[in-house]
Amino acid sequence: MATIPQDPKKLIEQAQKGDRACLARLISRIEYRNQETKKIVELLYPDTGKAQIWGITGPPGAGKSTAVDRLITHLRAQDKKVAVVAIDPSSPFSGGAILGDRIRMQRHSGDEGVYIRSLGTRGRHGGLSHSTKEVVLALDATHFDVILVETAGVGQTELDILKLAQTVLVVLVPESGDSIQVMKAGLMEIADVFAVNKSDRPEADKLVRELTQMVGLNPHDEHSWMIPVCKTEASRDVGILELMEFIQKHQEHLTKSGKRDEKTKAFLREEMVDILTEELKTSLEEIFTTAGGKEVLEKLLKKEIAPYEAAQIISGRN
Amino acid sequence: MATIPQDPKKLIEQAQKGDRACLARLISRIEYRNQETKKIVELLYPDTGKAQIWGITGPPGAGKSTAVDRLITHLRAQDKKVAVVAIDPSSPFSGGAILGDRIRMQRHSGDEGVYIRSLGTRGRHGGLSHSTKEVVLALDATHFDVILVETAGVGQTELDILKLAQTVLVVLVPESGDSIQVMKAGLMEIADVFAVNKSDRPEADKLVRELTQMVGLNPHDEHSWMIPVCKTEASRDVGILELMEFIQKHQEHLTKSGKRDEKTKAFLREEMVDILTEELKTSLEEIFTTAGGKEVLEKLLKKEIAPYEAAQIISGRN
Repeated sequence: MATIPQDPKKLIEQAQKGDRACLARLISRIEYRNQETKKIVELLYPDTGKAQIWGITGPPGAGKSTAVDRLITHLRAQDKKVAVVAIDPSSPFSGGAILGDRIRMQRHSGDEGVYIRSLGTRGRHGGLSHSTKEVVLALDATHFDVILVETAGVGQTELDILKLAQTVLVVLVPESGDSIQVMKAGLMEIADVFAVNKSDRPEADKLVRELTQMVGLNPHDEHSWMIPVCKTEASRDVGILELMEFIQKHQEHLTKSGKRDEKTKAFLREEMVDILTEELKTSLEEIFTTAGGKEVLEKLLKKEIAPYEAAQIISGRN
Repeated sequence: MATIPQDPKKLIEQAQKGDRACLARLISRIEYRNQETKKIVELLYPDTGKAQIWGITGPPGAGKSTAVDRLITHLRAQDKKVAVVAIDPSSPFSGGAILGDRIRMQRHSGDEGVYIRSLGTRGRHGGLSHSTKEVVLALDATHFDVILVETAGVGQTELDILKLAQTVLVVLVPESGDSIQVMKAGLMEIADVFAVNKSDRPEADKLVRELTQMVGLNPHDEHSWMIPVCKTEASRDVGILELMEFIQKHQEHLTKSGKRDEKTKAFLREEMVDILTEELKTSLEEIFTTAGGKEVLEKLLKKEIAPYEAAQIISGRN
């Protein structure tokens, strides 16, 4: 068995050469954050910016994992290297089903051009959204062509994560409910491509029609992206190739329209906000262990001062 | 119709006198954050610290809302004023069922001693967890005896919210899965009281037995709290009174053991972290609109600098 280098630089080099054990270790080091994380990100950063980042969300049971599984196959046929980052909802009540989905995708695990990784939130220092951004940077820097970020979209954290994708695919099923709910839900704000999965079921055409109408209501001109609504049956691989082509058209649109740079800037701005927030939290934790910090807390507890006032005192000391 | 005062001080006074329209407005002002929020919290703070804060979580379908509904009735029989803060998962895919639950609870809406409020995350500036803390402060300051914070526990945000509760009730059903999953899930870390609801179903006794065994494995001495496992059928009001008594015993335990102050301190420490984080984000948003901030972002985009380096420059300017 080859050894896994401790040195971040060597570890990255090995991962970039395609060593999966090194890649896994690299990601773990990003996930379980410490002083080294910062160094790793700085080393990775110059090699980033080439990968396409696709986000995939939809209600539980819509068939996201099956769709991802099929997309992997079609991307492999185009000889693209594919990484999947699956975000597990952090609820203590979800474990089972999600793990099952992951196992389903593992049939690609023998393929050297595919890497699948689940990120959970338990036992982590810092936010899931921040870790995910940096894991995506790592996969980008280790030469994956397409990075699929899949979330169940069940919390604010998961929605924040979708912001890092350049193209967001929303997978719905006829049972997902009528279009009014979809609209209310603000899916229009995040979707670049819709898939109506399990489209052999009754009501599928109705949902396609409603989504298409809603999409048409968006203000648009000849330069704007018209959100396509694709009918798919992921379990039988029906419509997935067309779906992939629409996603790839959206990626071309981003490049041509100059929106890709905008998206990258937004990603980097968020990354900086995350870095600074994390640093702030670390330094605050330290402050509360000092005599001064404890004193402020005691005064607050005795109601001699109020929260915003206390925060101001703490930040003055900071 | 009585007018709702604009002035925060008057608004709070009216809400404290029991004016529900003023209370609703007060909470909205906290929820949709602006410069005034800070002032409102500072005004409320001296009157806080009297309410009991109970957190309630569990998987979807466990019967949390029904349990809450029953708890309200029993608390009212004790002449306690009760407020419910229901956290709606922020997923765009959940709307319907949750709203249904809220409507079910509305049968208490004619009761002046009960106030029910849902908090969602959409269209909000700042975190849900932060808003919820401040809404709880407002309910505390407006003289509610017990504040029930109900979450579906489906995301990190929702779990963070539970930290603000002094007592956490976890509602499970026989279908929730075996104890190993429960343990893995880390429920033991958050639960102060377990309810096995729908306990007329098969497997209920098995779950009760397993939970009781797991609870017994926790290290404990005569001063520690033994997590009770209660059998309930919320829909028929079976076991809910006993459940409430266990929660109230836990509250007494907190007072006697001195753990109440610890919990309050943790709450306040988190509140300060939230305040400072929110301020940081606001000031960062401003920085990125300046020439200096834009320059850093451009350099980052061109890879002349790396993210942590860029963050350092930004924070130096800050």
